[in-house]
Amino acid sequence: MLSVFTGEWLDVDVAVADGIIAGLGSYEGEEIVEADGRYVVPGFVDAHMHLESVKLVVDELARLLLPLGTTAVVADPHEIANVLGTDGVHWLHDASEGLPLDVYFMAPSSVPASPFESPRRALEPGDLEGLMRRSRVLGLAEMMNFPGVIGGEPGELAKLALDGAAHVDGHAPGVHGKELQAYVAAGIRSDHEALTVDEGRERLRAGMWLLVREASMARNLEALLPLVAEYGPGRIAFCTDDRDPEDIVDRGHVNGMVRDAVAAGVAPADAVRMASWNPALWHRLDRLGAIAPGYVADLLVLPELVRFVPDLVLKRGGHRLEIPRREVPEWVRQTVRIAPVTVPDLAIPWHGHGGTARAIGLVPDQVVTEALEREPLVREGHVVADPERDLVKLAVVERHLATGRIGLGLLSGSGLRDGALASSVAHDAHNLVICGVDDEDMVRAIARLAELGGGIVVVESGRVAAECPLPVAGLLSDRPLDEVVAQSRACNEAAARLGWSGATPFLTLAFLALSVIPSLKLTDRGLVDVDRFELVPLRV
Amino acid sequence: MLSVFTGEWLDVDVAVADGIIAGLGSYEGEEIVEADGRYVVPGFVDAHMHLESVKLVVDELARLLLPLGTTAVVADPHEIANVLGTDGVHWLHDASEGLPLDVYFMAPSSVPASPFESPRRALEPGDLEGLMRRSRVLGLAEMMNFPGVIGGEPGELAKLALDGAAHVDGHAPGVHGKELQAYVAAGIRSDHEALTVDEGRERLRAGMWLLVREASMARNLEALLPLVAEYGPGRIAFCTDDRDPEDIVDRGHVNGMVRDAVAAGVAPADAVRMASWNPALWHRLDRLGAIAPGYVADLLVLPELVRFVPDLVLKRGGHRLEIPRREVPEWVRQTVRIAPVTVPDLAIPWHGHGGTARAIGLVPDQVVTEALEREPLVREGHVVADPERDLVKLAVVERHLATGRIGLGLLSGSGLRDGALASSVAHDAHNLVICGVDDEDMVRAIARLAELGGGIVVVESGRVAAECPLPVAGLLSDRPLDEVVAQSRACNEAAARLGWSGATPFLTLAFLALSVIPSLKLTDRGLVDVDRFELVPLRV
Repeated sequence: MLSVFTGEWLDVDVAVADGIIAGLGSYEGEEIVEADGRYVVPGFVDAHMHLESVKLVVDELARLLLPLGTTAVVADPHEIANVLGTDGVHWLHDASEGLPLDVYFMAPSSVPASPFESPRRALEPGDLEGLMRRSRVLGLAEMMNFPGVIGGEPGELAKLALDGAAHVDGHAPGVHGKELQAYVAAGIRSDHEALTVDEGRERLRAGMWLLVREASMARNLEALLPLVAEYGPGRIAFCTDDRDPEDIVDRGHVNGMVRDAVAAGVAPADAVRMASWNPALWHRLDRLGAIAPGYVADLLVLPELVRFVPDLVLKRGGHRLEIPRREVPEWVRQTVRIAPVTVPDLAIPWHGHGGTARAIGLVPDQVVTEALEREPLVREGHVVADPERDLVKLAVVERHLATGRIGLGLLSGSGLRDGALASSVAHDAHNLVICGVDDEDMVRAIARLAELGGGIVVVESGRVAAECPLPVAGLLSDRPLDEVVAQSRACNEAAARLGWSGATPFLTLAFLALSVIPSLKLTDRGLVDVDRFELVPLRV
Repeated sequence: MLSVFTGEWLDVDVAVADGIIAGLGSYEGEEIVEADGRYVVPGFVDAHMHLESVKLVVDELARLLLPLGTTAVVADPHEIANVLGTDGVHWLHDASEGLPLDVYFMAPSSVPASPFESPRRALEPGDLEGLMRRSRVLGLAEMMNFPGVIGGEPGELAKLALDGAAHVDGHAPGVHGKELQAYVAAGIRSDHEALTVDEGRERLRAGMWLLVREASMARNLEALLPLVAEYGPGRIAFCTDDRDPEDIVDRGHVNGMVRDAVAAGVAPADAVRMASWNPALWHRLDRLGAIAPGYVADLLVLPELVRFVPDLVLKRGGHRLEIPRREVPEWVRQTVRIAPVTVPDLAIPWHGHGGTARAIGLVPDQVVTEALEREPLVREGHVVADPERDLVKLAVVERHLATGRIGLGLLSGSGLRDGALASSVAHDAHNLVICGVDDEDMVRAIARLAELGGGIVVVESGRVAAECPLPVAGLLSDRPLDEVVAQSRACNEAAARLGWSGATPFLTLAFLALSVIPSLKLTDRGLVDVDRFELVPLRV
């Protein structure tokens, strides 16, 4: 077994009583699991993730993650908080109670992510205070409004001054120098947005924990591993942030990060430490992440130190892990409330001849976009999609309060030649995002999302070509993993048939509404120039 | 400056605002302290100490420790708790409020240290619960009743189950194997009683913090330093436990441990880390022990990395450290309450001829003793001192409640040829401990202690030859450091003139009443066979 404290592999018995490790040494027991020369390591702890991104209800998430060796996660439930406020967070909390996967939470600090987004309601300091008093809520989740923190905005400082906000996760993409120092001085001591060795080094020197992220759309592990060689693993922990279910099926979860780190030359003891004890240390989970007396007996038996797929997962000492299916209450399913949308609602009037329009330029497999300018195709006084020039229409429809508010824009670089794609997963406010060549297809897709209570949909020539219903808050499926993955893959394939050229059409779509990532985004309130942090008209 | 996070010495400005580090980098400031090529390190944090052992009131303690670079201490105030209960702890807490030395406390878990000792009153779980709710009280102090914890005694488990007892210091001398595992499994995650590399290694592997102690009567640094080379400094922190004022004057405080570690080959960055950030980490003092944004600006400017005596100490960014003298209230001074003691009270009747008596055998400069058997010198039916055979009388007089209870015994190996020595510092209950050749001198010494309200006294031929008054709880002087050291040295010299052969007569005397250290001790209730953990008669 691995001692994370000394870095040694020790040949000792691990005694377990009532789910807790009673001792290391030579012991007798009622039930004996023989390791037979295999390796025993602590269960993996995901230091930061949004569990809604996996699109599974939390009991199904446990069925997916436990066999991969993830025995605990620290979740920022800000997706469901945008849709259902604190009620949604409390429901997720309740739904994860008593699972063999330990689910800890951080209170969502940034709902809405910006003033340009429309969640169902904003979370105020009082909401956060209440959440942080619940068990299993560890502190304040990633402070995404880093300009606000650095600038000393009273609203952000009020959140940081709350009881319970002694422990705060950070989110500081591209923040450097004095700005980074000010952000840290406000009491924020982790970041998972470092992309380079230089950024990682600056964060470590500033006293931050470096949470190395390997998300489906943002893979930073390889770039940051040199820091482990340079400084040791002491202040570095692994996290997955946003992971697609297909990605987990194909590449693993935290165990995949350990595998890849070891393949890149990191000592197995160090890689395991960054995946178990270190996340627990950062989050002060004093009984997780190590094999020692008094720690929870979350143990993985590994046949080798290459693939990091456990033969056996013991959670609280048990290995027959039964996870009952949990009912989803009706109020969590009824979240898509829209005013009726018809073709005229998606019209983009254009007066006169000529002129240029702003267009969002996709960057393959990145969440950042380019702010482009294009001469639009105009028909009968309205801008229409122009697939010949790879320019399609984009819409974001407010879907929480049926206000009828719709933001309209243009998208370049998708490859889409026909039909429409739509999703109720649209970070962070999770309004409906729709792109399409044909307005009728877009309207059909919106109507279908409303019928489903959310999901992702592909419409071709007026009919639904593929869909993945996500009726739980418009974010999660209530179906088993295999079904969700099959539906999701069918949607991707249908999108590809319509011409979409990137690998992850709906992940890409989901981030087009996130108004805190540069450069040009669309919300239900209109186009957001993120660099200038203001709404801008379509016409330049 | 030293980054404890990366182990690097960085050449940057440290910006300070309102006593907090605002940033590392290139800054302008209103007031500038030039380091001029010197070394800037975090202030030292003593991971575990009994501040009463230094015999100074806490403001005077601050005057002693701050110039040596100790900017924070974590104190177990169990000495004053034995004398004045929780009131005493609250007074020490109040008296240390607002000092430039940060004084944190652990709630004394073990008052009395054993059922054979007589403090003024016992501290119950409710007392501890109240103490642990005060600010600056971090958790539960060293759990000295390790047999009770290991054996699952309900009283000890009740203390460990208290709110606030998530953080507990250990005390596990000579505990090994399954017993140690059980002690740790109870939630106790530090120990400062490891004496050897093997003991230290066992504790690290069990997940304990290794608090390396260098006390006046128990010096473990040199023996444990090989563990730093073997495992790195990650889980090792320095502490002083019990320090004489003379010892601090002569050899320094935590800075002396850093000096000695570096002299023994430890890298300066590692040695400083074990003296600053690591104690803060163990005690979750999240804003101490490092130079980074958001940390308290406790900074030492060192001219070199050899002596570790700072040129300049900045506490919360300030370097003009004014420490007002604080009044000691009358109730803290009036603690020696004894029934009148006369020569007959010290008589040891001995019936018949022959027979052997138990005698406490001193081991030079150790707190352990030998359990000896000697044929006593008997005069007129009473055992009397026999300096020719290095056998003198020992008495412990209950001094809290004037019960008149007196324990009597024999001491071998002191070298004392004449007179009497007496002290109101007598771990842990702090009754009066007196040894002497002449009963009249012993009675005179007891009477003098009562007059002084406590202290240490040397009596020769009926007159006081030297004394160091300790009127504050019978433990602390109200005089400045220099005076206390001069008085203390005068007492040591007077004891040496009377024949005492060891270096530290009164420290030695103080531990003769501590009934949890092997092998034979004396309390007001009589002789304690510590190995058998029971009272035994003088006659074998």
